[in-house]
Amino acid sequence: PNNRPTICTADGANCVAITSRVHWDVGGYDYRPNSAGTVPQKLDSGENVRRARIGVVGKLLEDWNFALIYDFGGTADGFGGTGAAGAVPVGFLPGGGTSGIENAFISYTGLKPFGGKMAIEAGVMDLAWTMDESMSSNDIPFMERASVGVIAQNIAAGDFRSAVGTRWYNDVFWAGAYATGPTTGAIHSASTASPPGTSEQYGATARVAGQVVSGNDYSMHLGADAQWLIQPPRNLIANTQTLTLSDRPELRIDPTTLISTGAIPNVSGAQVYGVEAAGTYGPLFVQGEYYWFNIDRNANTAVAPISTSSLNFQGYYAEAAYVLTGESRKYNPGNAAYGGVKPTNPFSLAGGGWGAWEVAGRVSQMDLNDKIASAAGIAGGRQTVYTLALNWYVNGNVRFMLDYLHGTVSKQPLPPAAFANTGASFDAVAMRTQFAF
Amino acid sequence: PNNRPTICTADGANCVAITSRVHWDVGGYDYRPNSAGTVPQKLDSGENVRRARIGVVGKLLEDWNFALIYDFGGTADGFGGTGAAGAVPVGFLPGGGTSGIENAFISYTGLKPFGGKMAIEAGVMDLAWTMDESMSSNDIPFMERASVGVIAQNIAAGDFRSAVGTRWYNDVFWAGAYATGPTTGAIHSASTASPPGTSEQYGATARVAGQVVSGNDYSMHLGADAQWLIQPPRNLIANTQTLTLSDRPELRIDPTTLISTGAIPNVSGAQVYGVEAAGTYGPLFVQGEYYWFNIDRNANTAVAPISTSSLNFQGYYAEAAYVLTGESRKYNPGNAAYGGVKPTNPFSLAGGGWGAWEVAGRVSQMDLNDKIASAAGIAGGRQTVYTLALNWYVNGNVRFMLDYLHGTVSKQPLPPAAFANTGASFDAVAMRTQFAF
Amino acid sequence: PNNRPTICTADGANCVAITSRVHWDVGGYDYRPNSAGTVPQKLDSGENVRRARIGVVGKLLEDWNFALIYDFGGTADGFGGTGAAGAVPVGFLPGGGTSGIENAFISYTGLKPFGGKMAIEAGVMDLAWTMDESMSSNDIPFMERASVGVIAQNIAAGDFRSAVGTRWYNDVFWAGAYATGPTTGAIHSASTASPPGTSEQYGATARVAGQVVSGNDYSMHLGADAQWLIQPPRNLIANTQTLTLSDRPELRIDPTTLISTGAIPNVSGAQVYGVEAAGTYGPLFVQGEYYWFNIDRNANTAVAPISTSSLNFQGYYAEAAYVLTGESRKYNPGNAAYGGVKPTNPFSLAGGGWGAWEVAGRVSQMDLNDKIASAAGIAGGRQTVYTLALNWYVNGNVRFMLDYLHGTVSKQPLPPAAFANTGASFDAVAMRTQFAF
Repeated sequence: PNNRPTICTADGANCVAITSRVHWDVGGYDYRPNSAGTVPQKLDSGENVRRARIGVVGKLLEDWNFALIYDFGGTADGFGGTGAAGAVPVGFLPGGGTSGIENAFISYTGLKPFGGKMAIEAGVMDLAWTMDESMSSNDIPFMERASVGVIAQNIAAGDFRSAVGTRWYNDVFWAGAYATGPTTGAIHSASTASPPGTSEQYGATARVAGQVVSGNDYSMHLGADAQWLIQPPRNLIANTQTLTLSDRPELRIDPTTLISTGAIPNVSGAQVYGVEAAGTYGPLFVQGEYYWFNIDRNANTAVAPISTSSLNFQGYYAEAAYVLTGESRKYNPGNAAYGGVKPTNPFSLAGGGWGAWEVAGRVSQMDLNDKIASAAGIAGGRQTVYTLALNWYVNGNVRFMLDYLHGTVSKQPLPPAAFANTGASFDAVAMRTQFAF
Repeated sequence: PNNRPTICTADGANCVAITSRVHWDVGGYDYRPNSAGTVPQKLDSGENVRRARIGVVGKLLEDWNFALIYDFGGTADGFGGTGAAGAVPVGFLPGGGTSGIENAFISYTGLKPFGGKMAIEAGVMDLAWTMDESMSSNDIPFMERASVGVIAQNIAAGDFRSAVGTRWYNDVFWAGAYATGPTTGAIHSASTASPPGTSEQYGATARVAGQVVSGNDYSMHLGADAQWLIQPPRNLIANTQTLTLSDRPELRIDPTTLISTGAIPNVSGAQVYGVEAAGTYGPLFVQGEYYWFNIDRNANTAVAPISTSSLNFQGYYAEAAYVLTGESRKYNPGNAAYGGVKPTNPFSLAGGGWGAWEVAGRVSQMDLNDKIASAAGIAGGRQTVYTLALNWYVNGNVRFMLDYLHGTVSKQPLPPAAFANTGASFDAVAMRTQFAF
Repeated sequence: PNNRPTICTADGANCVAITSRVHWDVGGYDYRPNSAGTVPQKLDSGENVRRARIGVVGKLLEDWNFALIYDFGGTADGFGGTGAAGAVPVGFLPGGGTSGIENAFISYTGLKPFGGKMAIEAGVMDLAWTMDESMSSNDIPFMERASVGVIAQNIAAGDFRSAVGTRWYNDVFWAGAYATGPTTGAIHSASTASPPGTSEQYGATARVAGQVVSGNDYSMHLGADAQWLIQPPRNLIANTQTLTLSDRPELRIDPTTLISTGAIPNVSGAQVYGVEAAGTYGPLFVQGEYYWFNIDRNANTAVAPISTSSLNFQGYYAEAAYVLTGESRKYNPGNAAYGGVKPTNPFSLAGGGWGAWEVAGRVSQMDLNDKIASAAGIAGGRQTVYTLALNWYVNGNVRFMLDYLHGTVSKQPLPPAAFANTGASFDAVAMRTQFAF
């Protein structure tokens, strides 16, 4: 990216660059639980260091790319995350272990089959899985990605994920497949009692995509995504095997999730399938994705409930962004996703430029309810969020974002509990201050 | 600073520099509690990585300064800080979550009103609030700053603090005002039960200062400081709203605090006001500050005691330093504080230089006792510390410090408990090994 | 090392370089406990970010070297490590606080007595103590160092260790001695109750070594090592003074240790003495070390058992490596150890090189059993591991390692418990992906 400081050897075959990004969020919620049974009852207005990354990236002897990037920020900034010992407060950070190794991988690019480019990679990496995730967090038009993609990625892709795999691409097509393991910081020990040792999970992802149409000032992208959780982590003390799907309400000033399945018992595997479409027409950018989730519940754990039927969830989002100052988002073939807005006239009181200004809107829905008429169902809630955004790209490195969100959560208890409206609605306004290189 | 490695674009408009500092302390205490009722009964001699920072700083398109700096050290080096779950040992680090994001901010300097310079800044930053804090920790004549300033800053300024504000300055005057939020790592969640969710605090700081007299080899600085804790964090489970004022005995080999108010209940707000004066005459440097604290205790929490009277505390320090080798401390108008000692002849066995040598002395007092004749008072203790220092500035990046401290703490229980002398006295010797760029 | 990006001042007297290393491990165990009484009963196959370091190193005014390096990886990657509050799960990372400050020190090299070089150093550093530790983890022929050295170093040397000392060397001889303190992250407080405050430990190390024979394509190294734990940390609540010797089975995908003395009570001090020998003959490299441990148990703690007899443990390893492509390991006089394999023809599909290929084998034994016929003995177990390795040095910065391990642990309870075979055996295969500069 712009102005990233890089040191190369004289022959240019070896380069080390320093990369950094800070995303600092300030905002407030007007959160309205539908009843006293709604959880949570409150959200915190305030601030959060959403991302604070420092790292080194580069290439060694032309063909070997590498990265080591650490994120000091997170959903609740600060290290740690030990929240509680049973019900006894521990006096440290809530929000979970959110800082971590963002990237620690090697990527070999020396093979170039079929007239395209190819990367064979291993380590901890951001997988270009879902189109939303494939666009850098420095470039996305909203402060947070849509819930459906976040929930999908967290199963066997997403941040801090260990993986081995390959991607191939040319100017039009992209295809990638990865075997994935646990995230950094997950439990590595089979033998501890507290916290309980677990086995390490494994899964896989695949994605094919292409910029099927492209012209001088327009383009169209289509793609398909698949993910498999092949072996969930197994708690070796309680002998349980669970999976939790949840997300925050597309804003993370308060790290609390509004929709959550809780720990689904006896999960033997999960599959996620999705389709993606996007396009540009001059300064207009549109994008949408749909994902369908299947969760199998027949793990052999001897813990009730035994062999319940599978669960299905789904969600989607659709968004449009328009750059008032006329710039276009360019396609990035290496990730099969569109890039960010680079201002033609960076803001300068001396030079007279005003940077680039963008407006954007999104509707996003994630439904974590299934079989809610039955005690064997899951009532995780259905969240719908409408977001409006105004983004100011000061120059190629600095951006300010202003988001307004209106959201509703439909939620209820499962039978035999009596029906109760445990949903909520909220409005929120938040602002991000960002630099990156 | 000296020898900071910096990479700029060819036009010089964009620069990224790497910054680092290590302060490594070794020392021992002779600590003498006045009675068996004194807390603590012991202090640990030993070592501590007081500061270990790596970060990137620079400018983007001339007017946008940025910084991301992480401190891996701390009062008790190492991450974590979870000390206890109730009374059950957790087996990890004491001393609190002391590592954290030191700086993560953007500062815009494109406006230059009234013939001066101006910075509009947002993010996590070190606020130039109190004169002691406005001098870099690489430059202060003693290993630790005086307790009165540390206690004042920790209320709504200090390290790891989120803030938005502005400062304006020219060669003579400086004025700055900031709205401040919580520190990184503070609780962001309103909805957790353990640890209990809290609301995020907010406050504000203001400071005006000027180098009112300056000549060829002398100068004088005067200033005034104000700070407001407008909304203390509210514990949303226990419904409490508290504030704790405390500090270590101006040395942090052992992270234990000797004076502390404990958690003052029902704090609705706090104000701190102070004055500062400093000057140089050739190699002589003198500085002093006085701060007055008011703590309001009428928060509406339904937790006793209800609406107690306000508390007042105060403290001061006065210090003098003399550079035996003749160098002077220069004034830094951007922070309205004096800078460090740059040796004219850096130490070199080959070159014959001996670096710069400085002697310094300080008397510092902080009184955290108020209304101690009454059960509604606070008996936090009154600490007086005398410090002598010998500093060797090897070159522009390396410094060794040797401090001797003699301190006394006057402390007693509040009535109706019988009077007891729970104070202490101590002597300590410590040495710092430092490099920075 | 190769391609480390470095920025110097024009006169070359001041340089700052960026250093980084990533070691990412994937592997699996076939672990077979000898009985149901064996602890542990299981090991986790999976992955681990073994090392993930970023730091700055360099020199200031020619004679002052410095380093600040942080390791974000660890035996269980990720920060934290709070494992349990009593028996209550805390829900965070197992494996202990394994991330930390790897290096934070200053080293002065301006004195050059007796025609050699000398470094006087202070701070947190890797001590060149044991020959295995003196070879960089980027260069060692196996994924983990032999247990005997790891256990020896962890007493009063090893990673994250605070130390002050000096080393002197010329092309043939090396001698070094250091006073050492606690590691970063150890308890600094004498006064906390949970976790219990401890005093800080101190100890010392000494090593003399020499490349006693060297010719055009052969060389031989001999050395002797000594270490003293002078004052173990004392738990100031329980009044205990303990030492634990343990290690993982020369692979750390699962962080569980197989052999461990447990916390030996009433330890008043410990001494370790060892000898080392190594040599090269063209592409052949051989190395071995033997260490003998004495643990004194007459600390005055008033906690039983009082003044028990001393304990003795011992261990050794012997290894050989052969570079199939003909490269030799060069001697590094500054650490008195051999360096790594630098491929003559780095791998390149374009250039036709295949890098360097190395095969290696090691036998390693550590015996933590002593006086096991008596209740006053320690039955920590005797571990024997055979390792075969195949290493591919792609270029000067990238390496892949494949290790096969076969190990056995002989273990039993102490009397009066009935004899039981609580040992185990295992086979393991693991692969490391590595870059470093």
